[in-house]
Amino acid sequence: MDSSLDNFMCVALKLTEEAGKIIRERIWEVKQDVQTKSHIHDFVTKTDQEIEKLLITGLNSKFPSHKFIGEETTSAGVKPEFTDDPTWIIDPVDGTLNFVHGYPNVCVSIGLTINKEIVLGIIFVPISFMMFTAIKGRGAFLNGKPIHVSKVSDLKDALLSVEFSGAATYKERLSSHVTHLQTFLSQVHGMRSGGSAAFNLAMVALGGADCYFEAGIHIWDIAAGAIIIEEAGGVVLDPSGTALIPTYV
Amino acid sequence: MDSSLDNFMCVALKLTEEAGKIIRERIWEVKQDVQTKSHIHDFVTKTDQEIEKLLITGLNSKFPSHKFIGEETTSAGVKPEFTDDPTWIIDPVDGTLNFVHGYPNVCVSIGLTINKEIVLGIIFVPISFMMFTAIKGRGAFLNGKPIHVSKVSDLKDALLSVEFSGAATYKERLSSHVTHLQTFLSQVHGMRSGGSAAFNLAMVALGGADCYFEAGIHIWDIAAGAIIIEEAGGVVLDPSGTALIPTYV
Repeated sequence: MDSSLDNFMCVALKLTEEAGKIIRERIWEVKQDVQTKSHIHDFVTKTDQEIEKLLITGLNSKFPSHKFIGEETTSAGVKPEFTDDPTWIIDPVDGTLNFVHGYPNVCVSIGLTINKEIVLGIIFVPISFMMFTAIKGRGAFLNGKPIHVSKVSDLKDALLSVEFSGAATYKERLSSHVTHLQTFLSQVHGMRSGGSAAFNLAMVALGGADCYFEAGIHIWDIAAGAIIIEEAGGVVLDPSGTALIPTYV
Repeated sequence: MDSSLDNFMCVALKLTEEAGKIIRERIWEVKQDVQTKSHIHDFVTKTDQEIEKLLITGLNSKFPSHKFIGEETTSAGVKPEFTDDPTWIIDPVDGTLNFVHGYPNVCVSIGLTINKEIVLGIIFVPISFMMFTAIKGRGAFLNGKPIHVSKVSDLKDALLSVEFSGAATYKERLSSHVTHLQTFLSQVHGMRSGGSAAFNLAMVALGGADCYFEAGIHIWDIAAGAIIIEEAGGVVLDPSGTALIPTYV
């Protein structure tokens, strides 16, 4: 068992809790500032950048040889360098639109790859104090208790997570979303839309939702969720069969 | 100011916290027992009945002259008697399907009417420890802090809560849901589906969602939410203009 992973987890958890505190303090404050910027579904907030900096600075000070791929850094035009080195893949505020509106499904999502394999994942939902964690080969946990994906294998028994994002900006997505609703709604037990990929993935790992699909995903949306789901006994896949790593980096 | 309302709130809050504790303890336990009962979107669980009994017994012991309208009691065939007497309107587990699956948006919802007017409301989301409260004329609160509905007045800036329920059981609802998605998705900032009417109403009161609509609602789904939203500065209405009370009782 690799004890360095425990150390990585310990440091990352502490920083994640700090990040979560900032989200809790600000989620119902920032709303008034940004709600006039309509039709911008994924814009960068000051908090987003601040939390990414907090996480990267904190991890870098303990692990100076590690690399980083962050949503905000990448959005700012830095091309991610993906190597065999330990690489932290970070979405500081997953569910930015929820954060802007004050809808509570907002997550800090942190994955770690070593030799291009995801070995550690953290998804924290600070508003509801749900901390999901996984280390490769050691299972997945919610606030320290083991979790497992559901045993549902039939669509009719399934709670399905979906997102209806981007339709205001990308008109072609509307018909795609309508088709999904028409295809699945009469077949499944229920449909939920939480507004955060990391939240939706955590729900699958927990067994609270039975499946989740989404188009247009980035590696920082799914790095943590992928290992948490796998360690909870589930699967995360690209429908083409392509491996998530390095395709989505 | 009517101090008896404070006493009612105090007693109801204590019972609500007990109810929430049961939900927290059981939400990820019961799943395995009931998930084979597919296609049953609103079925009664043992916990539902137990919590309704806990709430009614507790309130009745303190306020023996009060009346009760509960989802479970009504489902069991007891026709609700709606009078001018203080009447507690209770949904012990709103979001039953979420509870069954282990999806965290599960609420205890309690409203109180006096002279057929809603004067007190409590919505508790025990998994995330969010306690929403309101007393007529005194504002709405989340965990003791004042909350307000959003200032959004344009659909394009709005996060819209919807539910896609009942489509597996009632086929005619599928086309209605599809129409809603087609109508709103390209016009709004985002859509969310939380799976609990009380949760959706609480989100509107909080300003986290900007609006929410649903068909086929019962009074126990909305009694608490209605006063919490009104006290948070919002409105709850039937599109026909009919008053919620007594129409929905």
